Amino acid sequence: MVRNSLGRQIPRVFAGKTYVPYQDPWSLQPHFKRGTREIKRINHTAGKLLGSLREAIAATGLKDGMTISTHHSLRNGDHLLNELVAEIDAMGIRDIKIASSSIHAIHSEIIPFIRKGVITGLECGVNGMIGELISKGELDCPVVVRSHGGRARSLITGEVLVDVAFLAAPCCDEYGNFNGFTGPSACGSLGYAMPDSVHARKVVAVTDHLVPYPAVPISIPQTVVDFVVPVAHLGDPKKIVSTTTRVTTDPIGLQIAKHAAQVIEASGLMKDGFSFQTGTGGISLAVADHVRAMMRAGKIKGSFGCGGITGYFVDMLEEGLFQSLFDVQCFDLKAVESIARDRRHQEISASMYASPFNVGAVVNRLDCVILSATEVDVDFNVNVNTESNGYLLHNTGGHCDTAAGAKLSIIVAPSMRGRLPIIRDSVTTITTPGETVGVVVTERGIAVSDRYPELKAELIRRKAPVKDIRQLRDETYALTGVPRPLEFEDKIVGLVEYRDGSIIDVIRKIKV
Amino acid sequence: MVRNSLGRQIPRVFAGKTYVPYQDPWSLQPHFKRGTREIKRINHTAGKLLGSLREAIAATGLKDGMTISTHHSLRNGDHLLNELVAEIDAMGIRDIKIASSSIHAIHSEIIPFIRKGVITGLECGVNGMIGELISKGELDCPVVVRSHGGRARSLITGEVLVDVAFLAAPCCDEYGNFNGFTGPSACGSLGYAMPDSVHARKVVAVTDHLVPYPAVPISIPQTVVDFVVPVAHLGDPKKIVSTTTRVTTDPIGLQIAKHAAQVIEASGLMKDGFSFQTGTGGISLAVADHVRAMMRAGKIKGSFGCGGITGYFVDMLEEGLFQSLFDVQCFDLKAVESIARDRRHQEISASMYASPFNVGAVVNRLDCVILSATEVDVDFNVNVNTESNGYLLHNTGGHCDTAAGAKLSIIVAPSMRGRLPIIRDSVTTITTPGETVGVVVTERGIAVSDRYPELKAELIRRKAPVKDIRQLRDETYALTGVPRPLEFEDKIVGLVEYRDGSIIDVIRKIKV
Repeated sequence: MVRNSLGRQIPRVFAGKTYVPYQDPWSLQPHFKRGTREIKRINHTAGKLLGSLREAIAATGLKDGMTISTHHSLRNGDHLLNELVAEIDAMGIRDIKIASSSIHAIHSEIIPFIRKGVITGLECGVNGMIGELISKGELDCPVVVRSHGGRARSLITGEVLVDVAFLAAPCCDEYGNFNGFTGPSACGSLGYAMPDSVHARKVVAVTDHLVPYPAVPISIPQTVVDFVVPVAHLGDPKKIVSTTTRVTTDPIGLQIAKHAAQVIEASGLMKDGFSFQTGTGGISLAVADHVRAMMRAGKIKGSFGCGGITGYFVDMLEEGLFQSLFDVQCFDLKAVESIARDRRHQEISASMYASPFNVGAVVNRLDCVILSATEVDVDFNVNVNTESNGYLLHNTGGHCDTAAGAKLSIIVAPSMRGRLPIIRDSVTTITTPGETVGVVVTERGIAVSDRYPELKAELIRRKAPVKDIRQLRDETYALTGVPRPLEFEDKIVGLVEYRDGSIIDVIRKIKV
Repeated sequence: MVRNSLGRQIPRVFAGKTYVPYQDPWSLQPHFKRGTREIKRINHTAGKLLGSLREAIAATGLKDGMTISTHHSLRNGDHLLNELVAEIDAMGIRDIKIASSSIHAIHSEIIPFIRKGVITGLECGVNGMIGELISKGELDCPVVVRSHGGRARSLITGEVLVDVAFLAAPCCDEYGNFNGFTGPSACGSLGYAMPDSVHARKVVAVTDHLVPYPAVPISIPQTVVDFVVPVAHLGDPKKIVSTTTRVTTDPIGLQIAKHAAQVIEASGLMKDGFSFQTGTGGISLAVADHVRAMMRAGKIKGSFGCGGITGYFVDMLEEGLFQSLFDVQCFDLKAVESIARDRRHQEISASMYASPFNVGAVVNRLDCVILSATEVDVDFNVNVNTESNGYLLHNTGGHCDTAAGAKLSIIVAPSMRGRLPIIRDSVTTITTPGETVGVVVTERGIAVSDRYPELKAELIRRKAPVKDIRQLRDETYALTGVPRPLEFEDKIVGLVEYRDGSIIDVIRKIKV
């Protein structure tokens, strides 16, 4: 064990692999060549169509101990991973690691297969029940949580070797060209499947919408796809793209959004060329609403909106407030329709979005990002992975990537949830280092990092409710009481990897 | 020296590198991992804009002995390579190899720099004067001629290591995203720049049209571009995209096209899903005209048109005769306008177009390709690199790639040019092995390879002028006389690489 620069105890070895402790957001340099499968040649008359998932598993040579991946663009509507794991079990294959881009609540179906030893490790973040059970020690399945950019990095460098990627392909031809634009499982951008398509040793496109060759426009090309498997249904279309993203109506949320808007206004970033990312939460959308109003009022011609894209951003593109959208994942139907139609709405890979190890990700060009938190500490470190009960419930997403890249990262969070303080001495898990966080906005006031003295002065000049973050903590503790420390066992059940591959924190087993 | 399977004497070592002799079109298997630059990380606040080509050359660390590349999508309008070589000379750098995707007549300007030792090798095909002088032994500059697919392969495998790619970027932003769709040097598809953008050790985007970030739609992304250099002019727009592609009016050409159309009709390939490639020559376009008429008449819904794309193919797309176009290079303004606007008109990389070493190039999906020839021998071997005077005057292009991939490759050529027989005992240089050629069509008749007995029978049934290729040769020789063998010296001045990296023939110094 070794202490990293944020004071967290980090193992040098976890689940058989070696890791380096987190030092700072910037200095770690890659020492890799691009990691990729061997270059292959196929018979020029060979076809790629197979009859079933089982045939594909057999054709790829999947064996005990190997690593598979899927992408998460079908989100909670995805059936593929569950079916895949059941089939792998039925074929008697064991000790498989999952290195998907994310795992959602619907994938709780694989829990019995973890218990059974079919799945023995997760090289990816988890949302929901699986993480909770791992945290409780009820599932023995080491997990390494990565950000979207960090995951892309780990595939590109070969730190994570995916033996077979099974990629949901909403619109696919028999030779493996595919896109996410049409078909019953249309999900829009395939940004999270792109690193797998290039770096996995074998690639299987699984589709419920086989179209005549070629499936243009091509998001993932035939040149990287080994096999094509038609299936009846990739998932539940109703859950693939939610159409309910809505501005919050909660008064606390609205207050937070108003404060966040004040911060953006005071930052001086709101001018021609403005670039912006926000999530789909109600508070985030309320901030976006303010941003739109400010851009209209100032006749600002923005550069790009970024991230998971909603219809909200599509409207802003069409209104001319942004020159373009960078889309690594579509969050609603309006976004799916837009990316299929409007070439200013640019599909990008997870690597282009957020990897630290290339010559410039899109996050580096962000002016401002609005991010959420489950907890924030007085050093501005942010937790989004665990809740205050210590359960691993959320994937990192682009949190630490955008915070590191953006000129200004703004954390929006209520000061408390129920009786739990969100602003506190120490976070349960560090997802994003305080060194990359600019401002923490709560309904009780705005805490500005010392790295932004001019912004702080400007906010004070504008009579915004600027407070020291320790004051926010104290006000919160006065209402909630000082939180009792969680009790953990020594056992480490997971690692939280920073985007550069260093380990920023660990997930320990909760004492129950 | 070793004799390859076509009887040509091949050196094992040429210009310091080792090569394998050609064996057959299919069996050579790759033994490479993907060759690429080291994975880099840049400071997230770093910019990429440089002031001049000279600054860029200095920033990339270009040194004596290194290899540079450019792409040829500006064709005979390109000024970049000439300016680059002059600047390299002015900086005192020597012994540079050029591995561009092609070199055109306009690049004769670099001849003095070859004489001076600034440029000491060509890892690419040449069109025009430079090849002639190399053939005559007047320029000491070893040349390795590669097909479009073969060149992509050589970059992907690392057989050719490009130290710095200087890529003409017609529409580019300051962070290195670019496309070829707009700007004064708009050239459409950037398919031939794509392998360089991923595999060169350093990449410089050179632009005469710097646009606000981001330059969407993005053909080549910021994640692979190290530096951006604005220049006044990339080239001469009038010569970048020719607008004069016209069906031949020559009676011999029209007769050949009519015969070729008969072959296509008899082949049984002309049905729904038909895919087709042809060049821009007058005969090729005349064949395309017949194909269009046949498709209309048969109400054929074709799959794709492919290759360098002309307005002719755009018309066929818009008419619904093709479902899509695969475009690795635009040949005229109409194609440029279409690719920027119509997403069925798909930009593809040279690797996707034609590399033998991936899991399926587009050429594998071609039904029929129309190809030209400077010479054809009685074994159906085709020469497109040298003329009958032995001068290396033409690049291979996609000739051997499409011949190998297509179900049916049709060579269209007059039986003689001037007094020189085109159909002959032996070709001066083998570009494309007869094993991959289906039919040779001349104005005097149609020679069908023994590999297509059914096609031959069907053509005879249709009373098409089918002749044995030896008969075509004899008829030709009767008019031209038996050609006198060219006299060569022993000195090998160039290699002709087959698409898989094996050496199919050599270029020798002409005895003068």
